[in-house]
Amino acid sequence: MIILGIDPGIAITGYGLIKYSGNRFEVINYGAVTTDSKMPMPLRLKKIYDELDSIIDVYNPEAVVVEELFFNTNAKTAIVVGQARGVAVLVAANNNKEIFEYTPLQVKQGVVGYGRADKNQVQQMIKTILNLNKVPKPDDVADALAIAICHAHSGKFKSLFQIK
Amino acid sequence: MIILGIDPGIAITGYGLIKYSGNRFEVINYGAVTTDSKMPMPLRLKKIYDELDSIIDVYNPEAVVVEELFFNTNAKTAIVVGQARGVAVLVAANNNKEIFEYTPLQVKQGVVGYGRADKNQVQQMIKTILNLNKVPKPDDVADALAIAICHAHSGKFKSLFQIK
Repeated sequence: MIILGIDPGIAITGYGLIKYSGNRFEVINYGAVTTDSKMPMPLRLKKIYDELDSIIDVYNPEAVVVEELFFNTNAKTAIVVGQARGVAVLVAANNNKEIFEYTPLQVKQGVVGYGRADKNQVQQMIKTILNLNKVPKPDDVADALAIAICHAHSGKFKSLFQIK
Repeated sequence: MIILGIDPGIAITGYGLIKYSGNRFEVINYGAVTTDSKMPMPLRLKKIYDELDSIIDVYNPEAVVVEELFFNTNAKTAIVVGQARGVAVLVAANNNKEIFEYTPLQVKQGVVGYGRADKNQVQQMIKTILNLNKVPKPDDVADALAIAICHAHSGKFKSLFQIK
């Protein structure tokens, strides 16, 4: 099963593609869609949409997994990030993919085994599970891989929604 | 010039199409895309995308105008509404439309002539300008028509962004 994990953001949207079969993990690809803050918002959203659309087209993942966003920041910032998240969810829906979402707590539980794990522990676990030489950067990419791993382990977790 | 005004929301996205030429207004169509709260979020976003996409396809507006959202609510709600807004902006960008946005203050100024106008004043002005028998309901539809009128009057206002 190929799983596409996405950590949406307006400036950096991390993505990670993993293959999970017979309890074994394999990294297919990972990276980030970045948009310049000088670009008009519609073009930033369109770039995120188009690049994720290409990735789905090329790798044809069986599941798309998007992190639920939580913010202690102000509503204006949340609206901006929400726009990027909406685009990420939409591109998966437009490609008729199964979509799952997990909270940050569920991701930590799913990757490290307990919800109070810190960022470094999560990243080291990703490196180990996926047999990587180093932790992928930026953090958004590591987070995207983490949520994909979380979904692979999700026999333990209830997906919050599933559209297909 | 045909202008499509959109007031994005996850449950109700109002839209209004007006024709503006030679200082005269004509209503082309208006209504709302509604989604049931029991639908999974990806399908709600997809429905908003698909219906707005059809409207743009049928009426081929020269400009798409989206209200800037301001919220005093919590970040979680803002993220949800932001997702709907992202989809509305994206569908216009994917159709290579000019996209403009105005703040609620600018809309009041653009429709009634002053920024402290109340909702009833704005709605009565829409009814008068567009020569309607009654104020369109729900409020989201009236708001969508208001932002389209605001754009028609926008010689007075600087659009916040323009992608084309």
